[in-house]
Amino acid sequence: MVELRFDVLGIGNAIVDVMAKIEEDFLLRESLVKSSMRLVDTTESERLYRLMPPSIEASGGCAGNTAAGVASFGGRAAFIGKIAEDQLGDIYRHDMRTIGIHFDTPRLVGGDPTARSMILITPDGERTMNTYLGASQELAPADIDPVTVEAAQVTYLEGYLWDRPLAKDAFRKAAAIAHQAGRQVSLTLSDAFCVDRFRDEFIGLIRDGSIDVLFANESELKSLYQTASFESAMAAVRDDGKLAAVTVGADGAYVVSKESVDLVPAFPVETIVDTTGAGDQFAAGFLYGLARGLPAKVAGELGNLAAAEVISHIGPRPAVSLAGLARKSGFPI
Amino acid sequence: MVELRFDVLGIGNAIVDVMAKIEEDFLLRESLVKSSMRLVDTTESERLYRLMPPSIEASGGCAGNTAAGVASFGGRAAFIGKIAEDQLGDIYRHDMRTIGIHFDTPRLVGGDPTARSMILITPDGERTMNTYLGASQELAPADIDPVTVEAAQVTYLEGYLWDRPLAKDAFRKAAAIAHQAGRQVSLTLSDAFCVDRFRDEFIGLIRDGSIDVLFANESELKSLYQTASFESAMAAVRDDGKLAAVTVGADGAYVVSKESVDLVPAFPVETIVDTTGAGDQFAAGFLYGLARGLPAKVAGELGNLAAAEVISHIGPRPAVSLAGLARKSGFPI
Repeated sequence: MVELRFDVLGIGNAIVDVMAKIEEDFLLRESLVKSSMRLVDTTESERLYRLMPPSIEASGGCAGNTAAGVASFGGRAAFIGKIAEDQLGDIYRHDMRTIGIHFDTPRLVGGDPTARSMILITPDGERTMNTYLGASQELAPADIDPVTVEAAQVTYLEGYLWDRPLAKDAFRKAAAIAHQAGRQVSLTLSDAFCVDRFRDEFIGLIRDGSIDVLFANESELKSLYQTASFESAMAAVRDDGKLAAVTVGADGAYVVSKESVDLVPAFPVETIVDTTGAGDQFAAGFLYGLARGLPAKVAGELGNLAAAEVISHIGPRPAVSLAGLARKSGFPI
Repeated sequence: MVELRFDVLGIGNAIVDVMAKIEEDFLLRESLVKSSMRLVDTTESERLYRLMPPSIEASGGCAGNTAAGVASFGGRAAFIGKIAEDQLGDIYRHDMRTIGIHFDTPRLVGGDPTARSMILITPDGERTMNTYLGASQELAPADIDPVTVEAAQVTYLEGYLWDRPLAKDAFRKAAAIAHQAGRQVSLTLSDAFCVDRFRDEFIGLIRDGSIDVLFANESELKSLYQTASFESAMAAVRDDGKLAAVTVGADGAYVVSKESVDLVPAFPVETIVDTTGAGDQFAAGFLYGLARGLPAKVAGELGNLAAAEVISHIGPRPAVSLAGLARKSGFPI
């Protein structure tokens, strides 16, 4: 067996977040579905940007955020994602490497610029994302370095990858390599609309054994099993027999397996400033906990801890050391 | 007389801030002088960036920050500064224009990239700046649009401009046009080291009537008059007979004129998160107040209000409407 070098390898869209606070009426005027993610082309991206208030920029992307969270817990993390040879790409690479994330996916040369997501944050802390995929959508099977995948205890994949045929092939390649090496594969459903686009394929991945650990929130899970009832959706995911973590906002998260369903209560947060990255950081804590051999319920607590930290400030990645925070809260890490 | 279209025109280095929290020992290891600004070349810029933790990016630059503060008060603001044809330049222009700042300085084509300042924020909220000037240092007299200068009640200039001969000529041209049009000219000393580099010239500008309103903090003022005694420095600036605003950190600011010296106490701040932009936002409030015909002491209060807002969060520009904040505090604006 290949030497274990990483707790978690994240594979996903490499995206720089462009964040601004807006009022609710901005969403209404623009007919945007609150809390969702939509893809925008160059024209729409430029149009919306012109309307957006002054913004701050920070590296983001679901799997990238999760890798950063794992690193913040003190875990060994790797990332595969496509950036361009431009300033936003430089920023993205810097933000990954300086926290020790292994990240050496070849940069896209001569194509679209590095991806960015215009994240509109309403006063209630909810975020509505408008993503221009740019270079990130050129992620291809050739970018999946087998040595890195084989060296990672868990390979974590974004549902968003399914939006592009090339990235989908990369996803499948990574999952196959991981399993061949005796490693685990994890999927986050990413977004209820994403699930709506690829429901049958996602269910196929779960049932054919491509996925060992599933992440979803309430609306994604209901969309996956095409039911308005959370109870039915929970029963369905339990029947499918994988380890699943289902986040339920302020209530925390359910840790679901064939044997049991446990509600792990959320960590208290004084003021929710920006929910961007909440799911990604939950996944970071949960996967880090599993990788360190902690029981799934304790891993869920680490997930809630990381989510609580990230929603208390603007930006999708931890602002303080999650390892320090976890130790202060008495976790044995 | 040309129609008055702007309360404040800021002229300065157009810089994107690259901000990260660091521990004190980072400054020690790198032999950096805490709370100061130093200029770095391409090589040192790249070296330091590699050592810096993950960062967030936001538009900055002293005069640009002040223009943004004036706009946040509901004032009419303009800005002249040089950006490149690159992604950071796009971000800078976006952040100025979407808050209504008039900004149409021709972009630098084929030269250095847009300026950035690596701002290291220590746990006490102090910021230490490492600035790569790039395209911003190409600001030249041809960039000073006379129509814009004549239309602005106050033209506000950074001492930092004095670091580059071309920008210095641009500074002089702007001051001459403003005075010819019967407008006012204001200078911020920017930094004690900057004063040290150009002391005689700055004193010359004050005494030959090029400057009507002077901004300084305690260390800049002591450096200007080459004295270790704040009292002597205050006496000297009073002798020079200009309207001066001297910020003294947590104590607030002195408003100094030939006739009087008033200490305007600082606004209370719960936690100082990041002092970046404190002086710039003080200038925004003070100049906005003067432009709206308020007494200098009340203008100083508006300056303190704006400074208190900006140091309570990361980033050099207001995160909320200063107009709203000022009205809530009972100011007649």
